[in-house]
Amino acid sequence: MSIVTLMTDYGTRDAYVASVKGVILSLAPQAVVVDLTHEIDPFDVRRGAFVLWQSFRWFPAGTVHLAVVDPGVGSPRKLLAASFAGHVFLVPDNGLLTLIHREFRVEAMHAIENRRWYQPHVSTTFHGRDILAPVAAHLVNGVRLWELGPATDRMEVLPFRFRADSKEAGLEGDVLCADRFGNLITNIHGDQVDGLRVRGRCPQVYVGSQCVGPLRAAYHEVVPHEWVAYIGGGGLLEIAIHRGRAVDRFGSLETTIVAVR
Amino acid sequence: MSIVTLMTDYGTRDAYVASVKGVILSLAPQAVVVDLTHEIDPFDVRRGAFVLWQSFRWFPAGTVHLAVVDPGVGSPRKLLAASFAGHVFLVPDNGLLTLIHREFRVEAMHAIENRRWYQPHVSTTFHGRDILAPVAAHLVNGVRLWELGPATDRMEVLPFRFRADSKEAGLEGDVLCADRFGNLITNIHGDQVDGLRVRGRCPQVYVGSQCVGPLRAAYHEVVPHEWVAYIGGGGLLEIAIHRGRAVDRFGSLETTIVAVR
Amino acid sequence: MSIVTLMTDYGTRDAYVASVKGVILSLAPQAVVVDLTHEIDPFDVRRGAFVLWQSFRWFPAGTVHLAVVDPGVGSPRKLLAASFAGHVFLVPDNGLLTLIHREFRVEAMHAIENRRWYQPHVSTTFHGRDILAPVAAHLVNGVRLWELGPATDRMEVLPFRFRADSKEAGLEGDVLCADRFGNLITNIHGDQVDGLRVRGRCPQVYVGSQCVGPLRAAYHEVVPHEWVAYIGGGGLLEIAIHRGRAVDRFGSLETTIVAVR
Repeated sequence: MSIVTLMTDYGTRDAYVASVKGVILSLAPQAVVVDLTHEIDPFDVRRGAFVLWQSFRWFPAGTVHLAVVDPGVGSPRKLLAASFAGHVFLVPDNGLLTLIHREFRVEAMHAIENRRWYQPHVSTTFHGRDILAPVAAHLVNGVRLWELGPATDRMEVLPFRFRADSKEAGLEGDVLCADRFGNLITNIHGDQVDGLRVRGRCPQVYVGSQCVGPLRAAYHEVVPHEWVAYIGGGGLLEIAIHRGRAVDRFGSLETTIVAVR
Repeated sequence: MSIVTLMTDYGTRDAYVASVKGVILSLAPQAVVVDLTHEIDPFDVRRGAFVLWQSFRWFPAGTVHLAVVDPGVGSPRKLLAASFAGHVFLVPDNGLLTLIHREFRVEAMHAIENRRWYQPHVSTTFHGRDILAPVAAHLVNGVRLWELGPATDRMEVLPFRFRADSKEAGLEGDVLCADRFGNLITNIHGDQVDGLRVRGRCPQVYVGSQCVGPLRAAYHEVVPHEWVAYIGGGGLLEIAIHRGRAVDRFGSLETTIVAVR
Repeated sequence: MSIVTLMTDYGTRDAYVASVKGVILSLAPQAVVVDLTHEIDPFDVRRGAFVLWQSFRWFPAGTVHLAVVDPGVGSPRKLLAASFAGHVFLVPDNGLLTLIHREFRVEAMHAIENRRWYQPHVSTTFHGRDILAPVAAHLVNGVRLWELGPATDRMEVLPFRFRADSKEAGLEGDVLCADRFGNLITNIHGDQVDGLRVRGRCPQVYVGSQCVGPLRAAYHEVVPHEWVAYIGGGGLLEIAIHRGRAVDRFGSLETTIVAVR
């Protein structure tokens, strides 16, 4: 299998993404390079962790995922090659794998230190092109994880609440991100909501102090411009305004509590 | 042939487009996946219909076009697999095929109802990933349209005026869309303008009440910042400001009448 | 080898990029089409020249680079097929190759005039799709440069200062562009700065009248929100604010002098 996915905060206006692709295709012409996104806000490792976690699983096992949101490039932070669920991830060690690590067992993890797989010249500001891209290509060509550098069992993690808390009154969670449609995606997992339901209740969903109604199956159960809560395509509780933008109603997502009770 | 094109309103910041590609490549690794665009404004089926109509024809016959602008996802709206001009289109039944249907004869059309080709778990909010993506992959793998579900001859159409009206005084049409350069693309077809010309006249082009001059062959026939009307790359009359943005001069494109007389 | 890269000012909202890809894949299904960027500002040939110069070198020799920023489409301006460093470039003759031409010797250059390789119908406004796309595909299929049209040794160049000037007091250069991160990329080449260093000085970097400190190895040598100057991934002196946006501090990049002394 020869898929390499790319997720970065490079944007798509500059030469950066193309340079990474050029390096990969120069070394592994058979690679199929797929963009996850390059629109992670600069240095927003948290969002990068979320998007990587949500998207990688739809690719076949054996896929190599190159993910760079790397405010520490050029500092002594490590670069990691880690395997989870049969996928390989090439990342700076800054928490990008936090959510994947919370859901899956690490199968192998190595610090990328063997300069044999680097570009001949390595810049101090563009390790995505000079280290991770050639490493991805060499993996596609058959190099094994353990050839990249010494095994390690330590990696940085971000202080995410991975799953909402179960409280006496119900579930209490956070907004993990807002998507393109302005929908709020939370850390309340579908199985947690199912747990409430088996107790025979009809739980209501709250964003901050506002009740947005019971859990729905899909948008069309409410009229346009009304609030709707449902389990989204990622298996997480989402809160939307039907054909509107829920995110525009909130000043600060980071401090907004979402509850189901 | 194994090209699958994607057109959506998903944007490129979230995990959505990547998830669709991952599903397709998991089931049909030989597929060549090409983005038409993912920047259709959320729920703007009308613009989706326009872009799909303008772009599909440049791909080879046999291409599968997966197009999702789907405000009704999760509602009982149908999903369609339809064939026009040797191309296959996978769409929610909401008018996305309106312009293609106006130009070409439908060769086959089926409701996508056979769950055999769906993902094992189908969410209520992401049919692009859970239904259309695996169906596209299975078509690439040789499944036939009639295997997807029952034949149908009904589909939703949008109230587009496909071709400008011929009036006593000349042609009267609408602006279909504004493009990246701010150029206005109309529903006045090149052959309609040719019809005027053979009558020996030198027709003038009007946008609302403003005359923007005679039909030109190309931008450079006017000086920069001057209006120019010409038959664009899509075979339609376009109105531009040379090296400027015509669209910025108009409050409401929907109600702007374009005339050639 | 069968890579075709695309760089345009078409944006990604319209049917334009997809149409170009469709034409290429129709004629050369084996082509691997890679986007450099489509977000060059409309008609910004200068930025196009910069991005093309920075990115092409990371692809393997033999790659075909189709680059369209073409305010003169439809005018008598020529279309060129030129070879530098083993790469082929298909461009309107308006200066897009200026920086590549400054660094590399032209190996061959032909005006694209042989209509045999064009689309059957050529519009006056979309030569990217109707001329350059089929030419790229035919090159992938084995057509040679000299079959495209007559050899030529003249091409338009933009008034770029390619390398900073060496002055008595040190180096004096310009900002070539600002990138996604707001970093300023200059025309002061790394080897020029090395030249200063061997004289045993510790050179300071100035943007306009402001000293931004000595040359650093990487961002992390300064604290966040402090200025930092370093040799970037493109081999050029860059000026950044660590985790900030240097570009937002300047009114006009075009007239900003950068000095090292």
